[in-house]
Amino acid sequence: MNVAVDAMGGDHAPGVIVRGAFLAVSELGIDITLVGHEEAIAEELSSYRSADHITLHHCEEAVQMDEAPLKAVRKKKDASIRVAFGLVKRGEADAVVSAGNSGATLAAAVLTLGRLKGVDRPALASIFPGEKAPVVLIDVGANVDCRPAHLFQFGVMAHAFTTSILGVENPKIGLLSIGEERSKGNEQVRLARELFKESKLNFVGNVEGRDIFTGDVEIIVCDGFVGNVALKLSEGMGEVMTKSLQRELMSSLMGRASLLLGSRPLGRFKRKLDYEAYGGAPLLGINGVGIVCHGGSTPRAIKNAIKLAAQYVRDGGVDKMTGELNSIEAETFAS
Amino acid sequence: MNVAVDAMGGDHAPGVIVRGAFLAVSELGIDITLVGHEEAIAEELSSYRSADHITLHHCEEAVQMDEAPLKAVRKKKDASIRVAFGLVKRGEADAVVSAGNSGATLAAAVLTLGRLKGVDRPALASIFPGEKAPVVLIDVGANVDCRPAHLFQFGVMAHAFTTSILGVENPKIGLLSIGEERSKGNEQVRLARELFKESKLNFVGNVEGRDIFTGDVEIIVCDGFVGNVALKLSEGMGEVMTKSLQRELMSSLMGRASLLLGSRPLGRFKRKLDYEAYGGAPLLGINGVGIVCHGGSTPRAIKNAIKLAAQYVRDGGVDKMTGELNSIEAETFAS
Repeated sequence: MNVAVDAMGGDHAPGVIVRGAFLAVSELGIDITLVGHEEAIAEELSSYRSADHITLHHCEEAVQMDEAPLKAVRKKKDASIRVAFGLVKRGEADAVVSAGNSGATLAAAVLTLGRLKGVDRPALASIFPGEKAPVVLIDVGANVDCRPAHLFQFGVMAHAFTTSILGVENPKIGLLSIGEERSKGNEQVRLARELFKESKLNFVGNVEGRDIFTGDVEIIVCDGFVGNVALKLSEGMGEVMTKSLQRELMSSLMGRASLLLGSRPLGRFKRKLDYEAYGGAPLLGINGVGIVCHGGSTPRAIKNAIKLAAQYVRDGGVDKMTGELNSIEAETFAS
Repeated sequence: MNVAVDAMGGDHAPGVIVRGAFLAVSELGIDITLVGHEEAIAEELSSYRSADHITLHHCEEAVQMDEAPLKAVRKKKDASIRVAFGLVKRGEADAVVSAGNSGATLAAAVLTLGRLKGVDRPALASIFPGEKAPVVLIDVGANVDCRPAHLFQFGVMAHAFTTSILGVENPKIGLLSIGEERSKGNEQVRLARELFKESKLNFVGNVEGRDIFTGDVEIIVCDGFVGNVALKLSEGMGEVMTKSLQRELMSSLMGRASLLLGSRPLGRFKRKLDYEAYGGAPLLGINGVGIVCHGGSTPRAIKNAIKLAAQYVRDGGVDKMTGELNSIEAETFAS
């Protein structure tokens, strides 16, 4: 197993990325190819005693966070994210992990590996810690302006992912809207609803923002703008709440005693809110494995994203998804 | 002070609404006019010993949650929400509170009271408990398909509200998007950004979902679809997290001891997440005062919404907003 990691992508690249790669090597026994500028990476590598199982793959360029994704990827042929997917294309790596410009990661994946059959627009899926079960939210940022047909495809891809990778049978799918009533929601959602209703998917109708945390449905479909706002909002809320809880408890003697006694259950509570545990969001619909991480990822988040990428590869995720996509397409259009 | 309360609106109407009205009368000393079907309300009223300061205003109809708002309000001339705003129009009440169909509340407000000068589309503002300061999110559900010019007007209205009612000088305004970088965001947001930049408002650029909780900006502008998803998501996340914290602490002896010792700081933490404290969202841009409550509001939430309505009236909120709108319009178009 060899995971190509975009060493130039992320707010704290390459330092944090290199550290995450080291954690993956030592804790998970995965080989890593760090893709990026030799000098910058070598400097980071020099602070570690041994770099076994880590290979450096030099490239000259990198896509910056503020660049227009598609344009940058097309222009910069030697950008780290493009080179990383190139390694997968040539069979020199099994998957890509990047904390860089997510639009550029998407563009590089499509340009280099292509899309799976039946997929017009690959999308980012994020796994939320629902109260009853994990909830897959798709899309969380790959596609900001979507047509209803794209939303439907996101549902099909998430169905395939949830069935084949997460092992959930016949997952319930909801469309993220602003009310369960049929007349509510914007034009895009109203039209997508009809497509889902005509399909063989286990579509339950509209769901609301609160359902991302209940786990009543396993899949929630929305456009990448709404999904990204939801993702960032819940990350921010989790952080603020954890800090606020600690501050309140630390502000009194009784509270500090409470913090001491309750350290284990409080720790479990904190871990539930911990988005780093998921590491990153899988890019669904590309002909390969790519995991997109938060720009501000910690080394631990990078390590967990590498772990997710390796699991995806080991599970034969892409083949399973191809099979699911074919079977759903056949069923949907046969009806 | 007399607040007209739509007794037929909400998931648990009229029972919960009547109970909320009683709380408002006894705790706040506000007179209430309950608008709705006499029989249904009288039955609820009969379980209370005294109905002092509560008037019943009969009407035959009500707008249901699943009706198309504008159509329903136009057709049902005797619907409770329309009759309630009619009371304000005739000077028989000072404000309206409703937990019913929010689109119908908006439509009835515009139809009956009209819009303030310079406002094309009234919008719903919700006050979030930011880490540093409260954050006003606008729109949270009144307008699902918006043009860039509408987003700009939401910003102007929120500026007026935050300045005149919350007393914040020169509040910072951000546009909710999916990245701080200029190239990110959908078409609607990219165009709205230009309008804000050309104005005299204290516009800081794009903000992300996480900023709803930091309080780095005082106002966050988005369309009503995204805003409503954000509102419902944070409500749901707050509930799930509070339950999860309690469950974790109750699961062990040490945790239960911790819960006992930390009851006061934990209570303060819980209140911070308590959306009922805000009661409802003010409808900005109408020529009067209307507060929209969550369909699933508790009696306490209804009471707090009545309190907010009364404060808005006492502060002369509508006059102050008219003044602010005029001065911003003059400034913006003079530049």
